[in-house]
Amino acid sequence: MSDSLSEFSEFRTRLNDVILKAGNLTINRFFALDGRAYEAGALGVKTKEMLGLVSSLVLRCDDCVTYHVVRCREEGVTDEEMLEVFAVGLVVGGSIVIPHLRRAMARLEELNDGERGADRGNRS
Amino acid sequence: MSDSLSEFSEFRTRLNDVILKAGNLTINRFFALDGRAYEAGALGVKTKEMLGLVSSLVLRCDDCVTYHVVRCREEGVTDEEMLEVFAVGLVVGGSIVIPHLRRAMARLEELNDGERGADRGNRS
Amino acid sequence: MSDSLSEFSEFRTRLNDVILKAGNLTINRFFALDGRAYEAGALGVKTKEMLGLVSSLVLRCDDCVTYHVVRCREEGVTDEEMLEVFAVGLVVGGSIVIPHLRRAMARLEELNDGERGADRGNRS
Amino acid sequence: MSDSLSEFSEFRTRLNDVILKAGNLTINRFFALDGRAYEAGALGVKTKEMLGLVSSLVLRCDDCVTYHVVRCREEGVTDEEMLEVFAVGLVVGGSIVIPHLRRAMARLEELNDGERGADRGNRS
Amino acid sequence: MSDSLSEFSEFRTRLNDVILKAGNLTINRFFALDGRAYEAGALGVKTKEMLGLVSSLVLRCDDCVTYHVVRCREEGVTDEEMLEVFAVGLVVGGSIVIPHLRRAMARLEELNDGERGADRGNRS
Amino acid sequence: MSDSLSEFSEFRTRLNDVILKAGNLTINRFFALDGRAYEAGALGVKTKEMLGLVSSLVLRCDDCVTYHVVRCREEGVTDEEMLEVFAVGLVVGGSIVIPHLRRAMARLEELNDGERGADRGNRS
Repeated sequence: MSDSLSEFSEFRTRLNDVILKAGNLTINRFFALDGRAYEAGALGVKTKEMLGLVSSLVLRCDDCVTYHVVRCREEGVTDEEMLEVFAVGLVVGGSIVIPHLRRAMARLEELNDGERGADRGNRS
Repeated sequence: MSDSLSEFSEFRTRLNDVILKAGNLTINRFFALDGRAYEAGALGVKTKEMLGLVSSLVLRCDDCVTYHVVRCREEGVTDEEMLEVFAVGLVVGGSIVIPHLRRAMARLEELNDGERGADRGNRS
Repeated sequence: MSDSLSEFSEFRTRLNDVILKAGNLTINRFFALDGRAYEAGALGVKTKEMLGLVSSLVLRCDDCVTYHVVRCREEGVTDEEMLEVFAVGLVVGGSIVIPHLRRAMARLEELNDGERGADRGNRS
Repeated sequence: MSDSLSEFSEFRTRLNDVILKAGNLTINRFFALDGRAYEAGALGVKTKEMLGLVSSLVLRCDDCVTYHVVRCREEGVTDEEMLEVFAVGLVVGGSIVIPHLRRAMARLEELNDGERGADRGNRS
Repeated sequence: MSDSLSEFSEFRTRLNDVILKAGNLTINRFFALDGRAYEAGALGVKTKEMLGLVSSLVLRCDDCVTYHVVRCREEGVTDEEMLEVFAVGLVVGGSIVIPHLRRAMARLEELNDGERGADRGNRS
Repeated sequence: MSDSLSEFSEFRTRLNDVILKAGNLTINRFFALDGRAYEAGALGVKTKEMLGLVSSLVLRCDDCVTYHVVRCREEGVTDEEMLEVFAVGLVVGGSIVIPHLRRAMARLEELNDGERGADRGNRS
């Protein structure tokens, strides 16, 4: 967990940009489709982001988990709901998921600390 | 897709029984925990079953997909919602998921045919 | 290996049709993109199909392997080249790949038998 | 579970033979190395076969599980020990392992039925 | 390999604590079950830890490998035995396992260096 | 992406050496076989390295991707061809591959920067 959320976000934004500018049409369309899959439809965005989070957890992709933890929080997923998504992912994926769960919790901690910092800022 | 839903279900029930009677405490507790993970909490059962379905799809486990397609249907997940769960799973997991998606659609077809059969039965 | 190549192909075609008619835009675009990825570009179709084959083998998806073995043969991949693709997949993916390699070889056998049958047919 | 142990074994033997005769040196050496990995060394064959079994289970390869269940039994692994190997695999790999565990238990049942049949045969 | 064994251990302990205090009953029971799976039964703890190690290696989870390398050493697994567990994992999982094997060897080195340091300490 | 290409390479070389000197015959033969799989045969080295690259990408192994990106470049794979290999890997493996694609692009950037640096050096 050497990178902070802001470092992760900066690397992600910069390299996504490098990829899209490289001009491979298949890759660029995939990126567009990836955005589309989480848009509201018969299911709401919040549900779809939780689907993305649990998929990322069972496939054990830390960066994907980080991304969806942030997006879930933006869509109003509470800590308790987040933990229930983690619980399904843990039972489905097994103990091999635990190191990723630890890093997911550290991200959640980081997000909550940031929010508390922002609250303090707002209050003053 | 040689087995029908009822054959799948019969094998599943019989072997789960064999496993539980074998008396390994760790395995038996895991089975209990597996049931627990989908119970209503901060998130409802329908949402949790969709989390189980998308996890099964990206991990490419046909039997798990079959089980959760059936459970999702029992919890009122519509065809359109089911397809949106499939769409997230497909984008996250890639084209390697497609054969499992085909078998998931065949299961959904089988379920819908069964329901239409039941409706006709009820009407008569 | 209960299904023959023609049974596999028929199920594949029928269910792909069911999926595309179901009308989920994300899924339908993914299917279009999946076709696009193997079109000629800086790399030729033959090379791309071998990339698809080795990916399917290391990810251990029998249906994907079957599909790409057929496509590779259509693009002129010889038995010896096919075996070298298998060899890379086996070394990268390990002995867990062996059961899929056996089924891939059975598909290749089936293809070669079909070709010999067609040759005999052409001669008569 | 359409194939019996003897059908599995026959297909496995025949296709391994097809593969080895195809004459790819990398593949043939891999097969030799695969045999070597389970030979007695600092660890005994029984322990190594249990390592192979749990690896096959967490990687969710039914044919590999079948092979190592048979080999473990030949090396004297008892039902109780086999279940403890399964339990570690289940906890590490999660509920996604369960369908494979069911098929592993069906194989163990098949083996035990065969042994009882053989015992009856010996007694008569 | 930016983190030392002691940094890994500190992060692991702190975040496990955060997870358990978060109060999700399914997660907490899973953690209890995870401990239980490695307790002595028909198989001894040493054998079970080697099963955990090979599973972690073929599933390519560095933190899990680190944890089980440490536990195996505590249970008296020698360097030669450890290498034989690695060899089974490498053959089953393929060359994709090699980067994890390198990091596992670095951990073993770190452990052995620590032990030699402790020996020198004890002697003085 | 905390390690540069040269740090990656140094760690890789040193630990491979530690592994080979540890003297486990199965592991040492596997390493030899791993080298052999990419030698010229019916398929050329360039094609085999691209097979290794796409396999590494869909199996989501950053170190393996780094290794094969470097080897592909040495074999004359252009940026445009590299992107087409990435595109096949992305479509086969899904969005879960994206974080690894970002890191692969960063490695390619690093390689291209190094080459430009070398060109400038040569010119002066």
